[in-house]
Amino acid sequence: MQSVEKHRSHGGTLEVFDHESAVTGTTMRFAVFLPREAEKADVPCLWYLSGLTCNWSNVMEKGGVLKAAAARGCAIIAPDTSPRGEGVPDDEAYDLGQGAGFYLTATQEPWSQHFQMDRYITEELQALVTESFPIAKDRQGIFGHSMGGHGAISLHLKHPELYRTCSAFAPITAPSQCPWGQKAFTAYLGSDNASWAQYDSAILALKQPSEAEILIDQGLDDPFLSEQLLHGIFEDACQTSGQAYALRRQAGYDHSYYFISTFMDDHLRHHMEGLTA
Amino acid sequence: MQSVEKHRSHGGTLEVFDHESAVTGTTMRFAVFLPREAEKADVPCLWYLSGLTCNWSNVMEKGGVLKAAAARGCAIIAPDTSPRGEGVPDDEAYDLGQGAGFYLTATQEPWSQHFQMDRYITEELQALVTESFPIAKDRQGIFGHSMGGHGAISLHLKHPELYRTCSAFAPITAPSQCPWGQKAFTAYLGSDNASWAQYDSAILALKQPSEAEILIDQGLDDPFLSEQLLHGIFEDACQTSGQAYALRRQAGYDHSYYFISTFMDDHLRHHMEGLTA
Repeated sequence: MQSVEKHRSHGGTLEVFDHESAVTGTTMRFAVFLPREAEKADVPCLWYLSGLTCNWSNVMEKGGVLKAAAARGCAIIAPDTSPRGEGVPDDEAYDLGQGAGFYLTATQEPWSQHFQMDRYITEELQALVTESFPIAKDRQGIFGHSMGGHGAISLHLKHPELYRTCSAFAPITAPSQCPWGQKAFTAYLGSDNASWAQYDSAILALKQPSEAEILIDQGLDDPFLSEQLLHGIFEDACQTSGQAYALRRQAGYDHSYYFISTFMDDHLRHHMEGLTA
Repeated sequence: MQSVEKHRSHGGTLEVFDHESAVTGTTMRFAVFLPREAEKADVPCLWYLSGLTCNWSNVMEKGGVLKAAAARGCAIIAPDTSPRGEGVPDDEAYDLGQGAGFYLTATQEPWSQHFQMDRYITEELQALVTESFPIAKDRQGIFGHSMGGHGAISLHLKHPELYRTCSAFAPITAPSQCPWGQKAFTAYLGSDNASWAQYDSAILALKQPSEAEILIDQGLDDPFLSEQLLHGIFEDACQTSGQAYALRRQAGYDHSYYFISTFMDDHLRHHMEGLTA
């Protein structure tokens, strides 16, 4: 693990690392914010999964997350959204390939060699981070934005004991039924959509609800709302299965970090209440 | 004035505009954040001047300023740091030309035609902004970062009735005596440094102190501290003239927006206390 940059912020420390990932077969970059409290004790930890085209920097720079995490004594981990670099397959489109890993294990060529972001995050980076930093393993939550909201909800529902709390900003909640998800799942998983269900938050919420309440903030002026995010399908699934959720519709807000930063502190409160309950 | 983008954030609105400037002879871009309170009444307004290479977006995206301003019911104006575009002189270096206007009126070729950022901000943009938005003209302050800290302190000291409050993050405080300032002032004002004094915060604080207390935060791990920022000269001037100031030395912090965002709310409080006193 090699430190790339390090900054004091809000009484804690933001540090960015490169490491060689055996899972993706590439050098992967991630960021860690440790609050002041981590100098003396293990702290709760939230994993933030970013959206299409993003990397660790979007939420750390623009999300207002450092202030919120420092105020609540919580660590934040921000992984990348895909493997990257020469030799890693890519696509000219912003919504496939590098920057668009969709938090799944690709089974199709040319993606399957490197694109295994779910195993990378839940296994390899999880082990590395909890060994390297003063993180309370039993107090971890997960959240994210857009494609990363899909990642957060699906990984929470598949690993509810690892990620005990969950929230999302403008998440893709029914990827099997929206253009972004259908394009990515077809490329990464193949056109037989039987394998898609394991990565579809609406299907997971229907089949294996968690005991946590999932908090979702959604801007009503989000240009992707009606075509890509499909919260109606997710809500129906939750209501059928008894999955607890709170979907807050925020008038006037769009899909940007101006929206995310507005509600960031509410999400930190949601997680910390869940993790300290 | 043409709207370029607009986002709801923290209960208020961030909007970015282009307009044709008669002073600079170019299209100039600036951003305005209006808090919720501006829907019903005139609000106090802070002008944020950015540092070398920056534009309106740095502070609005990374500064944590929207949350702080929304909490205190204050508008924020972020101008650009220079004229830009084809036909505007530039230099390959990051610290001269476009992105490096130094908040002064250039008298030397090739800069003098367009580089008049002090008049642009204090006269033209001031008139445009106060005519266009619900801003309380008698409750304005100014702050900034690095080169923009130089701009904020010098413009406050030259226009203390316009900008009643002042603060800065890691400001250049004695530009006549540091490499950044000497390079820019030589290019823009000529090598006869008699004309430089009117733009030198330390000299202005000595000769024409204001009645406000100037708040400065400075990271002690700032790589530019010892060579470029020269606070000792500024402090000596303030102590001689009686200019009130508070210079807070922040251990471990650098020159980045990770530093600025940490102390942003303290600066908003400083201004709002001054403007409502």
